[in-house]
Amino acid sequence: MANVLIVHAHPESNSFSSALARTAAETFVQAGHRVTVSDLYAMSFDPVSARTNYLTVANPEYFKPQAEEQYATEHGGFVPALETEMRKLEEADLLVFSFPLWWFGLPAILKGWVDRVFAYGRIYGRGRWYDQGLGRGKRALALLTTGSPATAYQRGGLHTDLETMLAPLHHGIFAFNGFSPLRPFVSWGAAHIGPEARADQLNALRERLATIWSEPTPVVPEVADYDPQTFADKRRRFLVTVRKPVLPDAPQFVPPKTDQQRLRDLRFAGTLVRALVGGTENGIWQAAFELRASDSAKATSLLSSLSMLSDCELTCTPLDLEREQALSPCWQS
Amino acid sequence: MANVLIVHAHPESNSFSSALARTAAETFVQAGHRVTVSDLYAMSFDPVSARTNYLTVANPEYFKPQAEEQYATEHGGFVPALETEMRKLEEADLLVFSFPLWWFGLPAILKGWVDRVFAYGRIYGRGRWYDQGLGRGKRALALLTTGSPATAYQRGGLHTDLETMLAPLHHGIFAFNGFSPLRPFVSWGAAHIGPEARADQLNALRERLATIWSEPTPVVPEVADYDPQTFADKRRRFLVTVRKPVLPDAPQFVPPKTDQQRLRDLRFAGTLVRALVGGTENGIWQAAFELRASDSAKATSLLSSLSMLSDCELTCTPLDLEREQALSPCWQS
Repeated sequence: MANVLIVHAHPESNSFSSALARTAAETFVQAGHRVTVSDLYAMSFDPVSARTNYLTVANPEYFKPQAEEQYATEHGGFVPALETEMRKLEEADLLVFSFPLWWFGLPAILKGWVDRVFAYGRIYGRGRWYDQGLGRGKRALALLTTGSPATAYQRGGLHTDLETMLAPLHHGIFAFNGFSPLRPFVSWGAAHIGPEARADQLNALRERLATIWSEPTPVVPEVADYDPQTFADKRRRFLVTVRKPVLPDAPQFVPPKTDQQRLRDLRFAGTLVRALVGGTENGIWQAAFELRASDSAKATSLLSSLSMLSDCELTCTPLDLEREQALSPCWQS
Repeated sequence: MANVLIVHAHPESNSFSSALARTAAETFVQAGHRVTVSDLYAMSFDPVSARTNYLTVANPEYFKPQAEEQYATEHGGFVPALETEMRKLEEADLLVFSFPLWWFGLPAILKGWVDRVFAYGRIYGRGRWYDQGLGRGKRALALLTTGSPATAYQRGGLHTDLETMLAPLHHGIFAFNGFSPLRPFVSWGAAHIGPEARADQLNALRERLATIWSEPTPVVPEVADYDPQTFADKRRRFLVTVRKPVLPDAPQFVPPKTDQQRLRDLRFAGTLVRALVGGTENGIWQAAFELRASDSAKATSLLSSLSMLSDCELTCTPLDLEREQALSPCWQS
């Protein structure tokens, strides 16, 4: 038996988003888990982080949220509504955020739950973050609906890929606090699908949740890998390009499952940062990988163990992130 | 003279974040612009999007926010507090969001301003988005403070790069509504710097704002480039790898300024999607570029015009985004 906390944010209790949250709760209860639901709209949760968070006052002249959070932590000074939510969070083995994607992120009522409940001193801080965080060894799931179809949120889609858009949640909230972010459950274009498709989605959710405790999870960043002053990575990064000649009449190249598994493991371990995978043109197939490793021999060996790359030419050089910034300056004037 | 709207979100009027917002307002006024400030904490702005947004009711049985927004648009049904903010937004030539970075995003009070003020029907929708959006030809600036130093938010930093973390704001809010997202003004580690460093920061802000109207800006996505049903990109993407031999005693390679300028232009035009730039090892320098183009000859020619690549071997293949997803599966089970 595990403790599941579902934090739900939709203003309409009969919405499909609310049906997803209810289905998740029922599924976990039926499987014997203990489920707590914070239905933020039903609770009229106030999302504005302010002095109303606290019964205590550390400094009446100047309001510095982290200082007040630290003081309230030391003096039992959180208002009961937050104290209750903090205890739910502290007890959760699985944290579920259930929401419609509003402006590519959390509805304000849920963002404010994060702003107020994840308090410095109480929930994180003083060394408790990432692999040292509250959620260490625990899991977190985003359960969301979108307005646009999946293809709008893929690489090359109008809205940019969902992985990027959810980075503030997956990396900045879940992993920052130690929770391993699971693959999100997304109901694409939920407003535009009929009752049958919705029933299928609810069934897909039930099936997914049945195995959610055994899904492989990405590791959260290990604080020891980063410089304690600058928080810059102490491990190095490498660019490995791979290429091979392909005969014009060769069959379509299909990467073996074992290679896919190995690459997912590298990704989940934080070793494979990104991959750019080409098709074939002019008799050449190529790809480029960004890897995090101790040295270039290690980076190369990580990839050379893949059977799909056994007949490829591999070229590995350290990444030069400063020069990359100068040459890919999205924000420089 | 231009209209500047500063939407500010910090609970302490004497905070450095508030000083940045005040300095921005003063600088624009002194330059002869018309400045409107929405100080959300001072206004006790309610960030919870709900039926309280509207004087009208389209459907009393089932609350669907976009349907109510459309109905309120047609019937003058937004409550006065939102009507006022919508008019400010509609009149703004430059939109400034001023905030401390809380949990890698907007404080809830500001996220809720977005949730409620950017209403479907009134502000966006029915073809008004991206290059067809309200902010077409206008600019938007994020003015923010962080707790951690810049190095934590660079590529390879513990917190992941700030460009990724701000994508929901820059792409999903600013560009989605047609505003060109400017390079953000960031006061890194603002809580940990002294009065002199803060004065320097305020001066740097004044200098930046003096030229903000002439800064080059990235284009926002052009809706016509995307399939109207799937919102998938109709243009293609290419992986171009470049490499050249470097003599062991060659001086450190410094890309010429003209190349940097050209690459920034390609980035701002949406043509250069990303760059991975290596250092030199074993006598080889290499880099990998992802480009958006009509065909591979065009993609190659975009890079071959760079003087730094004149003596490089270029290999261009189309990107295979499906295979990439299979081989870099951050979320696949």
